[in-house]
Amino acid sequence: MPHITVPEGLAGIRGLMAIRPEAAKPLNELVDVLLHGEGSLSAGERELIATYVSSLNDCYYCQTTHGAIAAAHLENNEDLVLQVKRNYHDAPISEKLKSLLGIAALVQRGGKAVTPEAIAAARKNGATDLEIHDAVLIAAAFCMYNRYVDGLDTWAPTDMNLYRTRAAKVAKEGYLNANRELLKKSETPN
Amino acid sequence: MPHITVPEGLAGIRGLMAIRPEAAKPLNELVDVLLHGEGSLSAGERELIATYVSSLNDCYYCQTTHGAIAAAHLENNEDLVLQVKRNYHDAPISEKLKSLLGIAALVQRGGKAVTPEAIAAARKNGATDLEIHDAVLIAAAFCMYNRYVDGLDTWAPTDMNLYRTRAAKVAKEGYLNANRELLKKSETPN
Repeated sequence: MPHITVPEGLAGIRGLMAIRPEAAKPLNELVDVLLHGEGSLSAGERELIATYVSSLNDCYYCQTTHGAIAAAHLENNEDLVLQVKRNYHDAPISEKLKSLLGIAALVQRGGKAVTPEAIAAARKNGATDLEIHDAVLIAAAFCMYNRYVDGLDTWAPTDMNLYRTRAAKVAKEGYLNANRELLKKSETPN
Repeated sequence: MPHITVPEGLAGIRGLMAIRPEAAKPLNELVDVLLHGEGSLSAGERELIATYVSSLNDCYYCQTTHGAIAAAHLENNEDLVLQVKRNYHDAPISEKLKSLLGIAALVQRGGKAVTPEAIAAARKNGATDLEIHDAVLIAAAFCMYNRYVDGLDTWAPTDMNLYRTRAAKVAKEGYLNANRELLKKSETPN
Protein backbone atom coordinates (compact mmCIF):
# COMPACT_ATOMS: atom_id res chain seq x y z
CA MET A 1 0.00 0.00 0.00
CA PRO A 2 1.41 3.42 -0.90
CA HIS A 3 2.69 5.54 2.00
CA ILE A 4 0.18 8.28 1.12
CA THR A 5 -3.33 8.18 -0.34
CA VAL A 6 -3.42 8.10 -4.16
CA PRO A 7 -6.35 7.41 -6.51
CA GLU A 8 -6.96 3.69 -7.02
CA GLY A 9 -6.05 2.16 -10.36
CA LEU A 10 -3.33 4.66 -11.24
CA ALA A 11 0.02 2.85 -11.06
CA GLY A 12 3.48 4.15 -10.18
CA ILE A 13 4.13 7.80 -10.90
CA ARG A 14 0.67 8.22 -12.45
CA GLY A 15 -1.04 8.08 -9.06
CA LEU A 16 1.39 10.70 -7.78
CA MET A 17 0.77 12.94 -10.80
CA ALA A 18 -2.91 12.96 -9.97
CA ILE A 19 -2.36 14.27 -6.43
CA ARG A 20 0.34 16.86 -7.32
CA PRO A 21 -0.45 18.12 -10.82
CA GLU A 22 1.69 21.26 -10.38
CA ALA A 23 4.77 19.02 -10.08
CA ALA A 24 3.48 16.53 -12.66
CA LYS A 25 3.66 19.15 -15.40
CA PRO A 26 7.43 19.81 -15.28
CA LEU A 27 8.11 16.13 -14.50
CA ASN A 28 6.33 15.17 -17.72
CA GLU A 29 7.90 17.95 -19.74
CA LEU A 30 11.36 16.89 -18.60
CA VAL A 31 10.91 13.23 -19.52
CA ASP A 32 9.38 14.23 -22.84
CA VAL A 33 12.35 16.48 -23.74
CA LEU A 34 14.87 13.86 -22.68
CA LEU A 35 13.32 10.66 -24.04
CA HIS A 36 10.84 11.63 -26.74
CA GLY A 37 11.99 15.02 -28.06
CA GLU A 38 14.39 15.48 -30.95
CA GLY A 39 17.88 14.15 -30.42
CA SER A 40 20.77 12.52 -32.23
CA LEU A 41 20.35 9.46 -30.01
CA SER A 42 17.21 7.58 -31.05
CA ALA A 43 14.24 7.45 -28.67
CA GLY A 44 14.87 3.71 -28.30
CA GLU A 45 18.49 4.30 -27.24
CA ARG A 46 17.45 6.95 -24.73
CA GLU A 47 14.73 4.70 -23.30
CA LEU A 48 17.37 1.96 -22.91
CA ILE A 49 19.46 4.34 -20.76
CA ALA A 50 16.39 5.16 -18.63
CA THR A 51 15.53 1.45 -18.32
CA TYR A 52 19.06 0.47 -17.38
CA VAL A 53 19.36 3.13 -14.65
CA SER A 54 15.94 2.14 -13.30
CA SER A 55 17.09 -1.48 -13.12
CA LEU A 56 20.25 -0.41 -11.24
CA ASN A 57 17.96 1.41 -8.80
CA ASP A 58 15.79 -1.73 -8.62
CA CYS A 59 12.63 0.22 -9.47
CA TYR A 60 10.18 -2.34 -10.84
CA TYR A 61 7.60 0.13 -12.16
CA CYS A 62 10.10 2.37 -13.99
CA GLN A 63 12.25 -0.36 -15.50
CA THR A 64 9.16 -2.23 -16.71
CA THR A 65 7.45 0.89 -18.06
CA HIS A 66 10.50 2.27 -19.85
CA GLY A 67 11.69 -1.18 -20.90
CA ALA A 68 8.33 -1.64 -22.66
CA ILE A 69 8.60 1.82 -24.26
CA ALA A 70 12.17 1.05 -25.38
CA ALA A 71 10.95 -2.19 -26.97
CA ALA A 72 8.07 -0.33 -28.66
CA HIS A 73 10.66 1.94 -30.30
CA LEU A 74 12.93 -1.02 -31.18
CA GLU A 75 10.64 -3.25 -33.26
CA ASN A 76 9.27 -4.87 -30.08
CA ASN A 77 12.64 -6.44 -29.34
CA GLU A 78 12.06 -7.21 -25.67
CA ASP A 79 15.05 -9.57 -25.64
CA LEU A 80 17.36 -6.68 -26.46
CA VAL A 81 15.99 -4.71 -23.50
CA LEU A 82 16.64 -7.69 -21.20
CA GLN A 83 20.17 -8.09 -22.57
CA VAL A 84 20.95 -4.43 -21.91
CA LYS A 85 19.70 -4.77 -18.34
CA ARG A 86 21.63 -7.99 -17.69
CA ASN A 87 24.93 -7.20 -19.43
CA TYR A 88 24.95 -4.37 -21.92
CA HIS A 89 28.61 -5.05 -22.82
CA ASP A 90 27.54 -8.13 -24.80
CA ALA A 91 24.33 -6.66 -26.25
CA PRO A 92 24.07 -5.91 -30.01
CA ILE A 93 24.13 -2.13 -29.57
CA SER A 94 26.63 0.50 -30.75
CA GLU A 95 29.91 1.08 -28.92
CA LYS A 96 28.77 4.68 -28.44
CA LEU A 97 25.62 3.59 -26.60
CA LYS A 98 27.66 1.15 -24.50
CA SER A 99 29.95 3.95 -23.36
CA LEU A 100 26.95 6.20 -22.57
CA LEU A 101 25.42 3.35 -20.53
CA GLY A 102 28.79 3.17 -18.72
CA ILE A 103 28.53 6.89 -17.85
CA ALA A 104 24.90 6.38 -16.76
CA ALA A 105 25.96 3.61 -14.38
CA LEU A 106 28.51 5.96 -12.78
CA VAL A 107 25.92 8.73 -12.42
CA GLN A 108 23.61 6.23 -10.70
CA ARG A 109 26.32 5.73 -8.03
CA GLY A 110 26.80 9.49 -7.64
CA GLY A 111 27.78 12.57 -9.64
CA LYS A 112 31.36 12.47 -8.42
CA ALA A 113 31.76 8.87 -9.63
CA VAL A 114 31.89 10.01 -13.28
CA THR A 115 35.53 9.88 -14.43
CA PRO A 116 37.35 11.77 -17.20
CA GLU A 117 38.23 8.30 -18.58
CA ALA A 118 34.54 7.37 -18.96
CA ILE A 119 33.91 10.67 -20.77
CA ALA A 120 36.98 10.16 -22.99
CA ALA A 121 35.80 6.64 -23.89
CA ALA A 122 32.40 8.00 -24.95
CA ARG A 123 34.04 10.68 -27.09
CA LYS A 124 36.30 8.10 -28.68
CA ASN A 125 33.18 6.15 -29.64
CA GLY A 126 31.73 9.23 -31.32
CA ALA A 127 29.55 10.73 -28.57
CA THR A 128 29.03 14.50 -28.83
CA ASP A 129 28.93 16.93 -25.91
CA LEU A 130 25.14 17.03 -26.16
CA GLU A 131 24.86 13.22 -26.13
CA ILE A 132 27.13 13.03 -23.07
CA HIS A 133 25.08 15.80 -21.44
CA ASP A 134 21.81 14.02 -22.15
CA ALA A 135 23.09 10.63 -20.96
CA VAL A 136 24.12 12.23 -17.64
CA LEU A 137 20.82 14.08 -17.27
CA ILE A 138 18.70 11.04 -18.22
CA ALA A 139 20.58 8.95 -15.63
CA ALA A 140 20.27 11.69 -13.00
CA ALA A 141 16.57 12.19 -13.77
CA PHE A 142 15.84 8.49 -13.32
CA CYS A 143 17.62 8.60 -9.96
CA MET A 144 14.83 11.07 -9.16
CA TYR A 145 11.86 9.29 -10.78
CA ASN A 146 12.89 5.92 -9.26
CA ARG A 147 13.19 7.41 -5.77
CA TYR A 148 9.88 9.24 -6.16
CA VAL A 149 8.01 6.10 -7.24
CA ASP A 150 9.59 3.74 -4.67
CA GLY A 151 10.03 6.32 -1.87
CA LEU A 152 6.24 6.62 -1.71
CA ASP A 153 5.81 2.86 -2.19
CA THR A 154 3.47 3.18 -5.15
CA TRP A 155 1.57 0.26 -6.60
CA ALA A 156 2.64 -1.41 -9.87
CA PRO A 157 0.75 -4.02 -11.92
CA THR A 158 2.56 -7.23 -12.90
CA ASP A 159 0.64 -7.94 -16.12
CA MET A 160 3.14 -7.17 -18.91
CA ASN A 161 0.34 -6.58 -21.41
CA LEU A 162 -0.73 -3.49 -19.51
CA TYR A 163 2.79 -2.08 -19.91
CA ARG A 164 2.93 -3.05 -23.60
CA THR A 165 -0.37 -1.34 -24.40
CA ARG A 166 0.61 1.84 -22.65
CA ALA A 167 4.13 1.75 -24.12
CA ALA A 168 2.77 1.67 -27.67
CA LYS A 169 0.75 4.81 -26.90
CA VAL A 170 3.66 6.68 -25.26
CA ALA A 171 6.12 5.68 -28.01
CA LYS A 172 3.72 7.04 -30.61
CA GLU A 173 2.34 10.16 -28.91
CA GLY A 174 5.03 11.16 -26.40
CA TYR A 175 4.63 11.65 -22.65
CA LEU A 176 2.77 14.94 -22.67
CA ASN A 177 0.12 13.73 -25.08
CA ALA A 178 -0.21 10.28 -23.54
CA ASN A 179 -0.70 11.83 -20.09
CA ARG A 180 -2.81 14.80 -21.16
CA GLU A 181 -5.90 13.67 -19.24
CA LEU A 182 -3.94 13.56 -15.98
CA LEU A 183 -2.11 16.82 -16.71
CA LYS A 184 -5.32 18.67 -17.55
CA LYS A 185 -6.17 18.60 -13.86
CA SER A 186 -3.28 20.95 -13.20
CA GLU A 187 -5.34 23.68 -14.82
CA THR A 188 -8.26 23.09 -12.46
CA PRO A 189 -7.94 24.76 -9.07
CA ASN A 190 -8.10 22.27 -6.18
CA MET B 1 37.23 21.78 -15.86
CA PRO B 2 33.71 20.62 -16.79
CA HIS B 3 33.47 17.39 -18.79
CA ILE B 4 31.71 19.24 -21.63
CA THR B 5 32.02 22.81 -22.95
CA VAL B 6 29.82 25.31 -21.11
CA PRO B 7 29.86 29.14 -21.28
CA GLU B 8 32.49 30.67 -19.02
CA GLY B 9 31.34 32.47 -15.88
CA LEU B 10 28.10 30.51 -15.44
CA ALA B 11 28.51 28.30 -12.36
CA GLY B 12 26.98 24.92 -11.55
CA ILE B 13 23.67 24.13 -13.16
CA ARG B 14 23.50 27.60 -14.76
CA GLY B 15 26.17 26.73 -17.32
CA LEU B 16 24.23 23.56 -18.19
CA MET B 17 20.97 25.50 -18.53
CA ALA B 18 22.62 27.69 -21.14
CA ILE B 19 23.56 24.74 -23.36
CA ARG B 20 20.30 22.77 -23.00
CA PRO B 21 17.50 25.32 -22.59
CA GLU B 22 14.77 22.80 -23.52
CA ALA B 23 15.64 20.82 -20.40
CA ALA B 24 16.35 23.94 -18.34
CA LYS B 25 12.72 25.02 -18.58
CA PRO B 26 11.13 22.02 -16.80
CA LEU B 27 14.11 21.79 -14.40
CA ASN B 28 13.46 25.37 -13.32
CA GLU B 29 9.69 24.92 -13.19
CA LEU B 30 10.08 21.85 -10.98
CA VAL B 31 12.37 23.53 -8.46
CA ASP B 32 10.12 26.59 -8.43
CA VAL B 33 7.00 24.51 -7.67
CA LEU B 34 8.79 22.49 -4.98
CA LEU B 35 10.81 25.18 -3.20
CA HIS B 36 9.27 28.56 -4.01
CA GLY B 37 5.61 27.84 -4.85
CA GLU B 38 2.80 27.84 -2.32
CA GLY B 39 3.01 25.20 0.37
CA SER B 40 2.23 24.54 4.01
CA LEU B 41 5.94 24.07 4.64
CA SER B 42 7.70 27.45 4.49
CA ALA B 43 10.13 28.13 1.64
CA GLY B 44 12.91 28.22 4.25
CA GLU B 45 11.99 24.73 5.51
CA ARG B 46 11.85 23.33 1.98
CA GLU B 47 15.22 24.90 1.12
CA LEU B 48 16.65 23.25 4.26
CA ILE B 49 15.53 19.84 2.95
CA ALA B 50 17.15 20.58 -0.44
CA THR B 51 20.36 21.78 1.28
CA TYR B 52 20.52 18.76 3.57
CA VAL B 53 20.10 16.24 0.74
CA SER B 54 22.71 18.11 -1.33
CA SER B 55 25.13 17.89 1.59
CA LEU B 56 24.48 14.13 1.89
CA ASN B 57 25.31 13.87 -1.83
CA ASP B 58 28.40 16.01 -1.20
CA CYS B 59 27.44 18.49 -3.93
CA TYR B 60 29.28 21.72 -3.08
CA TYR B 61 27.48 23.96 -5.58
CA CYS B 62 23.95 22.83 -4.65
CA GLN B 63 24.39 22.76 -0.87
CA THR B 64 26.01 26.21 -0.93
CA THR B 65 23.44 27.71 -3.31
CA HIS B 66 20.40 26.30 -1.51
CA GLY B 67 21.95 26.82 1.93
CA ALA B 68 22.28 30.52 1.06
CA ILE B 69 18.69 30.64 -0.23
CA ALA B 70 17.47 28.87 2.93
CA ALA B 71 19.30 31.47 5.04
CA ALA B 72 17.82 34.29 2.94
CA HIS B 73 14.35 32.95 3.83
CA LEU B 74 15.30 32.45 7.51
CA GLU B 75 16.42 35.93 8.58
CA ASN B 76 19.94 35.26 7.26
CA ASN B 77 20.49 32.61 9.94
CA GLU B 78 23.43 30.84 8.31
CA ASP B 79 24.25 29.11 11.61
CA LEU B 80 20.92 27.32 11.52
CA VAL B 81 21.66 26.04 8.02
CA LEU B 82 25.02 24.70 9.21
CA GLN B 83 23.40 23.07 12.24
CA VAL B 84 20.85 21.29 10.04
CA LYS B 85 23.63 20.00 7.78
CA ARG B 86 25.78 18.81 10.70
CA ASN B 87 23.14 17.32 13.00
CA TYR B 88 19.54 18.32 12.39
CA HIS B 89 18.37 16.34 15.43
CA ASP B 90 19.78 19.04 17.74
CA ALA B 91 18.84 22.04 15.57
CA PRO B 92 16.13 24.49 16.75
CA ILE B 93 13.58 23.38 14.14
CA SER B 94 10.16 21.74 14.51
CA GLU B 95 9.80 18.03 15.22
CA LYS B 96 7.77 17.83 12.00
CA LEU B 97 10.66 19.20 9.94
CA LYS B 98 13.08 16.83 11.70
CA SER B 99 10.99 13.83 10.72
CA LEU B 100 10.74 15.08 7.11
CA LEU B 101 14.53 15.48 7.04
CA GLY B 102 14.70 11.88 8.29
CA ILE B 103 12.56 10.75 5.35
CA ALA B 104 14.71 12.83 2.96
CA ALA B 105 17.86 11.10 4.23
CA LEU B 106 16.28 7.70 3.49
CA VAL B 107 15.25 8.81 -0.02
CA GLN B 108 18.84 9.92 -0.63
CA ARG B 109 19.96 6.33 0.02
CA GLY B 110 17.27 4.94 -2.28
CA GLY B 111 13.51 4.86 -2.73
CA LYS B 112 13.17 1.46 -1.09
CA ALA B 113 14.98 2.69 2.04
CA VAL B 114 11.93 4.69 3.14
CA THR B 115 10.21 2.78 5.96
CA PRO B 116 6.59 2.81 7.17
CA GLU B 117 8.05 3.77 10.57
CA ALA B 118 9.65 6.92 9.16
CA ILE B 119 6.34 7.87 7.52
CA ALA B 120 4.43 7.13 10.75
CA ALA B 121 6.86 9.31 12.73
CA ALA B 122 6.28 12.22 10.34
CA ARG B 123 2.52 11.82 10.63
CA LYS B 124 2.75 11.72 14.42
CA ASN B 125 4.60 15.03 14.26
CA GLY B 126 1.77 16.56 12.23
CA ALA B 127 2.98 16.07 8.64
CA THR B 128 0.21 15.85 6.04
CA ASP B 129 0.20 13.54 3.00
CA LEU B 130 1.16 16.48 0.80
CA GLU B 131 4.07 17.45 3.07
CA ILE B 132 5.34 13.86 3.06
CA HIS B 133 4.91 13.75 -0.72
CA ASP B 134 6.81 17.00 -1.18
CA ALA B 135 9.63 15.99 1.17
CA VAL B 136 10.11 12.77 -0.83
CA LEU B 137 9.99 14.58 -4.18
CA ILE B 138 12.34 17.39 -3.03
CA ALA B 139 14.84 14.78 -1.81
CA ALA B 140 14.47 12.75 -5.02
CA ALA B 141 14.80 15.87 -7.19
CA PHE B 142 18.04 16.88 -5.46
CA CYS B 143 19.41 13.39 -6.09
CA MET B 144 18.93 14.42 -9.73
CA TYR B 145 20.20 18.02 -9.57
CA ASN B 146 23.28 17.00 -7.53
CA ARG B 147 24.17 14.22 -10.00
CA TYR B 148 23.61 16.55 -12.95
CA VAL B 149 25.89 19.27 -11.53
CA ASP B 150 28.67 16.93 -10.31
CA GLY B 151 28.29 14.30 -13.04
CA LEU B 152 29.35 16.91 -15.58
CA ASP B 153 31.97 18.32 -13.19
CA THR B 154 30.69 21.89 -13.37
CA TRP B 155 32.59 24.81 -11.90
CA ALA B 156 31.53 26.47 -8.62
CA PRO B 157 32.83 29.72 -7.11
CA THR B 158 34.04 29.67 -3.49
CA ASP B 159 33.25 33.30 -2.61
CA MET B 160 30.23 33.09 -0.26
CA ASN B 161 29.19 36.64 -1.12
CA LEU B 162 28.38 35.59 -4.67
CA TYR B 163 26.00 32.94 -3.29
CA ARG B 164 24.46 35.40 -0.80
CA THR B 165 23.75 38.00 -3.48
CA ARG B 166 22.12 35.50 -5.79
CA ALA B 167 20.23 33.85 -2.91
CA ALA B 168 18.60 37.16 -1.96
CA LYS B 169 17.35 37.51 -5.55
CA VAL B 170 16.05 33.93 -5.81
CA ALA B 171 14.37 34.07 -2.38
CA LYS B 172 12.56 37.24 -3.42
CA GLU B 173 11.72 36.52 -7.07
CA GLY B 174 11.64 32.73 -7.32
CA TYR B 175 13.65 30.53 -9.68
CA LEU B 176 11.78 31.23 -12.91
CA ASN B 177 12.07 34.99 -12.54
CA ALA B 178 15.65 34.96 -11.25
CA ASN B 179 16.72 32.78 -14.21
CA ARG B 180 14.55 34.44 -16.85
CA GLU B 181 17.49 35.70 -18.90
CA LEU B 182 18.90 32.19 -19.23
CA LEU B 183 15.49 30.65 -19.90
CA LYS B 184 14.64 33.18 -22.59
CA LYS B 185 17.16 31.46 -24.80
CA SER B 186 14.92 28.41 -24.95
CA GLU B 187 12.60 30.43 -27.17
CA THR B 188 15.35 31.15 -29.67
CA PRO B 189 15.98 28.37 -32.18
CA ASN B 190 19.55 27.05 -32.00
